[in-house]
Amino acid sequence: MFRDIFRVGFYETDALGHVNNTRLPQWFERSRDPLFDLFNPEKSLHNPHLILARMEVEYKREIYYGAEVEIRTGVRRVGTKSFVVYQEAWQNNQCCAFGESVLVHYDYPTKATLPLTDAQRAMLEEHQFGPKG
Amino acid sequence: MFRDIFRVGFYETDALGHVNNTRLPQWFERSRDPLFDLFNPEKSLHNPHLILARMEVEYKREIYYGAEVEIRTGVRRVGTKSFVVYQEAWQNNQCCAFGESVLVHYDYPTKATLPLTDAQRAMLEEHQFGPKG
Amino acid sequence: MFRDIFRVGFYETDALGHVNNTRLPQWFERSRDPLFDLFNPEKSLHNPHLILARMEVEYKREIYYGAEVEIRTGVRRVGTKSFVVYQEAWQNNQCCAFGESVLVHYDYPTKATLPLTDAQRAMLEEHQFGPKG
Amino acid sequence: MFRDIFRVGFYETDALGHVNNTRLPQWFERSRDPLFDLFNPEKSLHNPHLILARMEVEYKREIYYGAEVEIRTGVRRVGTKSFVVYQEAWQNNQCCAFGESVLVHYDYPTKATLPLTDAQRAMLEEHQFGPKG
Repeated sequence: MFRDIFRVGFYETDALGHVNNTRLPQWFERSRDPLFDLFNPEKSLHNPHLILARMEVEYKREIYYGAEVEIRTGVRRVGTKSFVVYQEAWQNNQCCAFGESVLVHYDYPTKATLPLTDAQRAMLEEHQFGPKG
Repeated sequence: MFRDIFRVGFYETDALGHVNNTRLPQWFERSRDPLFDLFNPEKSLHNPHLILARMEVEYKREIYYGAEVEIRTGVRRVGTKSFVVYQEAWQNNQCCAFGESVLVHYDYPTKATLPLTDAQRAMLEEHQFGPKG
Repeated sequence: MFRDIFRVGFYETDALGHVNNTRLPQWFERSRDPLFDLFNPEKSLHNPHLILARMEVEYKREIYYGAEVEIRTGVRRVGTKSFVVYQEAWQNNQCCAFGESVLVHYDYPTKATLPLTDAQRAMLEEHQFGPKG
Repeated sequence: MFRDIFRVGFYETDALGHVNNTRLPQWFERSRDPLFDLFNPEKSLHNPHLILARMEVEYKREIYYGAEVEIRTGVRRVGTKSFVVYQEAWQNNQCCAFGESVLVHYDYPTKATLPLTDAQRAMLEEHQFGPKG
């Protein structure tokens, strides 16, 4: 499981006085970087080898400006061509939001999905995280 | 069903050359405004009467800078205290992404969920949109 | 002078209850599109022919969620290799913010600045806007 | 001088392959937090005691995804009711952008500007940073 700690920017709040819901997908994207690095160690912008197919967030508690947020990221399930990432956002010892995203193994130049190799599957399974099922 | 048309900003693209995935939740939020207006015609920032509990987006095709996007928004299901919004993003006559969000009837000052009234349920059912099931 | 009208998204407000200052550079960027189109009618992402060198915004009044904003954009001064864009943000018949940006004529593949041609200068002068001086 | 280090998110890049210009005002805002804390140690969202009047950024070099950015922040000049913040963005040992912003001492409830006290001026002068003049 990967941990990513950062400070909330004031520009990330909204008029309700807490962090706007649309910031979670941005923070979650940034915190999926270590998983992208497994597939794209050279950090190619033209072929990162993974494409986002689906994303989902559940909002449990408000997140506030003025206290650090920790995003926890890992792999919930590994399929044949894709895997499911599970992520949580913590602030003040409470899980405030969690979510899943589906990343597909993908070759950008040919626009083709690709099976995950055994080595890739093993690599992903080292980072298991999230509720079962 | 509500339609919201707008131009893509260059700052909404990313290094892969198309619109970044995290923009869809922002556009979808903006296009849910007519549904918020039903509950909050005075546009109160302190008690909009609805709170987002869950959000989900499926990405089908890339969205590009340089052509207008249309967001289509409606109500998929109405529950006792919440309802499900269904939304699609269209560009060049193709549905590029779609998603759901769950909005809960909520009183911000008391932090309490509230049942939807019959009048509210009827009002929402006038804006049905989305696949059945 | 170009006019660009759009609705404020709730995600563009901040905890002070109005639009966050960092949104103005985004709106201004989007509203400079017609000027970019003059240099880049094919909308190339690899060589838009202009690069931003400097940007400045003055904030006069708060901008609110719930009313349309109009961005007015034109050319304030034309130099030998660059020009100055002047922009204003209007809401409810008041100018709430204004700003300048410097765009340099630039060839991305060779990373070289280029003189503006007479034809380009004439084209820019058709869109004069902003205070003199 | 305050230092703020963070990782670039992929969503902060644009189709030209590097960080979009509109991200700098957001990073600079976040990195001005220690100066806001001097005036607003209780982190009030209703009266942060400072309001942004003007902001300016000069772009010198592209900033890339994949390497940390350091924002350096300090006070360039102190006036009677306002002060000028100077900031730089560094990546790979190069200053890629710099900017100024003017913060005015301001009482939000009464919407009035206020003189800086001698104690506040002294406090700000402890954080001098930036070119003279």
